[in-house]
Amino acid sequence: MSGAEPAEAPEERSFLSAAEAAALERELLEDYRFGRQQLVELCGHASAVAVAKVFPLPALSRRQRTVLVVCGPEHNGAVGLVCARHLRVFEYEPTIFYPTRSLDLLHRDLTTQCEKMDIPFLSYLPTEVQLINDAYGLVVDAVLGPGVEPAAAGGPCTRALATLKLLSIPLVSLDIPSGWDAETGDGDADDGLRPDVLVSLAAPKRCAGRFSGRHHFVAGRFVPEDVRRKFALRLPGYAGTDCVAAL
Amino acid sequence: MSGAEPAEAPEERSFLSAAEAAALERELLEDYRFGRQQLVELCGHASAVAVAKVFPLPALSRRQRTVLVVCGPEHNGAVGLVCARHLRVFEYEPTIFYPTRSLDLLHRDLTTQCEKMDIPFLSYLPTEVQLINDAYGLVVDAVLGPGVEPAAAGGPCTRALATLKLLSIPLVSLDIPSGWDAETGDGDADDGLRPDVLVSLAAPKRCAGRFSGRHHFVAGRFVPEDVRRKFALRLPGYAGTDCVAAL
Repeated sequence: MSGAEPAEAPEERSFLSAAEAAALERELLEDYRFGRQQLVELCGHASAVAVAKVFPLPALSRRQRTVLVVCGPEHNGAVGLVCARHLRVFEYEPTIFYPTRSLDLLHRDLTTQCEKMDIPFLSYLPTEVQLINDAYGLVVDAVLGPGVEPAAAGGPCTRALATLKLLSIPLVSLDIPSGWDAETGDGDADDGLRPDVLVSLAAPKRCAGRFSGRHHFVAGRFVPEDVRRKFALRLPGYAGTDCVAAL
Repeated sequence: MSGAEPAEAPEERSFLSAAEAAALERELLEDYRFGRQQLVELCGHASAVAVAKVFPLPALSRRQRTVLVVCGPEHNGAVGLVCARHLRVFEYEPTIFYPTRSLDLLHRDLTTQCEKMDIPFLSYLPTEVQLINDAYGLVVDAVLGPGVEPAAAGGPCTRALATLKLLSIPLVSLDIPSGWDAETGDGDADDGLRPDVLVSLAAPKRCAGRFSGRHHFVAGRFVPEDVRRKFALRLPGYAGTDCVAAL
């Protein structure tokens, strides 16, 4: 290209690569001085709001209000813990399965908040799929985020993912369907989890292009306009004071 | 009372004394392990939502969308900084006056977030009241919370309060009208700030009984049910996923 041409804005896109998603998070944490506690709270709250949009409480029977939230040991799991707390506040009946606990202080505090609010924690996940289908109205998958290998999450999480694949009740994945390659989603979209609802945190990752469920939300209203522009992100408009937008 | 009588639940009330409010906050921070960052984020977000409920963006002219947020050096001011950020995200045009800056890391980070999002900070507040009435659609008072003496906030805050008293544009106070005695509101309700909107954080303080403005909200959906019961609080029902409720 000739240097004489006017500087052109990069073409906007709807998805971030794994490296871009990590860079965006660094920008928020380091340049904007967002705290991890703050971001996890915003993402977890928005995830619970997305669940409530798809499964509004008044439309559910008492049994359908029960939500199994499966949390991994990393960032995604912390968002799951916050999501469970807000679901409780919205009068759903969450139960948490959080088999590989992080020693991180933030995770421990979020766990205490849930425990003190009398949210039950399962000590193991039944392998009999029908038991889970019968006991819960839906499942929130907060096991693995982008760039976290299933092996790193430990055996109980890997086994939980194998169980989640077999469920017939609705599945809501936070950020990416756990176990998918954030970049490609190759193969995973067929062999891996097939969530009904995907809540992309901050912005959709590339693999979300292969998501074929019914509802895709983005929970990234907190992303400053300058950051959105820097990453040439095309994001949906958020209505009113909504913290999530449907894609 | 005879010991044979059944234990009776304490009578529920709508307001907390200053000591009770401090005890409730301690309970959240120490027992429930909420982080200050987390609580300030929840309160500031809910405050911005309350502003948007009373002054919905589509009903405002461009000039009316300008909001002056006056922040003190303590907790109340931190909530104001978060409120300003969310107002920006909701497409209002906040400007911040934050004359006595806290050295606290949380305040500094919240300030950076606002600065990086291009929210203007005033270096002084015009004493000519008409200039403020002309330049802004409304003012958010996040100067002083319960138990903070005006003297402790420093001269610029005291002078700002004197100016706020004279404004004719709508005034929204966070938690308590700045300068009021949280306990009694005595005299203050006549001589002090007279906000149009009051957003009680966590739960209303006693002085809110003397509030005579148009809209009173409580932003305390995050208060766990057990804590509400322990403090025998009668709180309004929150609808759907709303983070504030009108009283």
